[in-house]
Amino acid sequence: MTQRIPVVENILNANDRLAEENRARLDAAGVFAVNIMASPGAGKTSLIEQTLPHLADLARVAVVDGDIATSIDADRAAAAGAQAAIQINTGGECHLDAVMLHGALNQLDLTHFDLLIVENVGNLVCPASFKLGTHKSILVASVPEGDDKPYKYPGMYRGVDALVVNKIDLLPYINFRMDFFTSGVQALNPNLITFPLSCRTGEGIDAWIDWLIQNVKRKT
Amino acid sequence: MTQRIPVVENILNANDRLAEENRARLDAAGVFAVNIMASPGAGKTSLIEQTLPHLADLARVAVVDGDIATSIDADRAAAAGAQAAIQINTGGECHLDAVMLHGALNQLDLTHFDLLIVENVGNLVCPASFKLGTHKSILVASVPEGDDKPYKYPGMYRGVDALVVNKIDLLPYINFRMDFFTSGVQALNPNLITFPLSCRTGEGIDAWIDWLIQNVKRKT
Repeated sequence: MTQRIPVVENILNANDRLAEENRARLDAAGVFAVNIMASPGAGKTSLIEQTLPHLADLARVAVVDGDIATSIDADRAAAAGAQAAIQINTGGECHLDAVMLHGALNQLDLTHFDLLIVENVGNLVCPASFKLGTHKSILVASVPEGDDKPYKYPGMYRGVDALVVNKIDLLPYINFRMDFFTSGVQALNPNLITFPLSCRTGEGIDAWIDWLIQNVKRKT
Repeated sequence: MTQRIPVVENILNANDRLAEENRARLDAAGVFAVNIMASPGAGKTSLIEQTLPHLADLARVAVVDGDIATSIDADRAAAAGAQAAIQINTGGECHLDAVMLHGALNQLDLTHFDLLIVENVGNLVCPASFKLGTHKSILVASVPEGDDKPYKYPGMYRGVDALVVNKIDLLPYINFRMDFFTSGVQALNPNLITFPLSCRTGEGIDAWIDWLIQNVKRKT
């Protein structure tokens, strides 16, 4: 199985080159792009649903959703007010890659948008290895997943630019040690900007929206 | 990238051959083995912690835990009463494979055990593609993950022999449509045996234990 390593490296190099091309297209059009990653069910789609109404008068938003199957997520993004919502079905693939995003960008007139939200496949491992060309990587953690996830999935926590800790409304019902969680995060990614919030109740969402809008404005 | 496919196929074939060898070793020793898979944080380790005390007088249990990093899970299994607990750290790998289990089996005198519990890496995609040689595959879903997961991760739901739906104590606080979830499961895997339970409160755990013990007895 020694033949496996060079092939994987070649794929990653090809992916990174295409990610740079995606980035150049986004920059040329003045579009700020985020790559949202998380475990299945941490609340990526719920976060996008909560976010879109806040941006209604501030930014024109396209959403690209990656899933193994179904268009549930893109349908939800469109219903929540995305000006465009594209679903990528990966078949069996456990992550999005730059080729898939390239295909999605081909379906969009980027000059019509200020913000591109990419929702990756629910997976705390593989998406971390594949650059897409987006400007910021965002991880959505959630309280019910447990406080040990930074320790067990260090690659994901190490590589992101912002952390949303979702479902804080469930803290009273779950043994989640916020100190232990935060220590794990800080060891991997010191000063990572973190937004504790609840997509269900709306608590904490404003700080997240402010950060996102500031980034969009800085870009355009 | 067309060269990629045959290499992956070769790896899977090699994996399947070694999985068959693992199965033969388990059978020769009279050990019943389960492969527990789930999203990160669905409650695989909690399920093992809840299960082990119920088996104390009934079966000698070894636990093999797969994680990207840390020995948190194996430590928890040992504390809960596993006669042996082995931690596999996969480095960056997003799943266990038959080679890794083979290495773990080499560290165990299988004649000392009746049941082997393998806890896979938290991931709802990749582990479904790699046979280990275990007798039954078990998926732990959890209420906070959301009711759309069977639709979005069909490969995992299609391939398992039993389904644990954990964290039912959180049903009052979450919009989880059990009918929608169950319809999705049934479409992919009709008559899949399902155990709704809460590792936190212990509700529903008995039916799961009964099923597991029956399988262990049938095997030995």
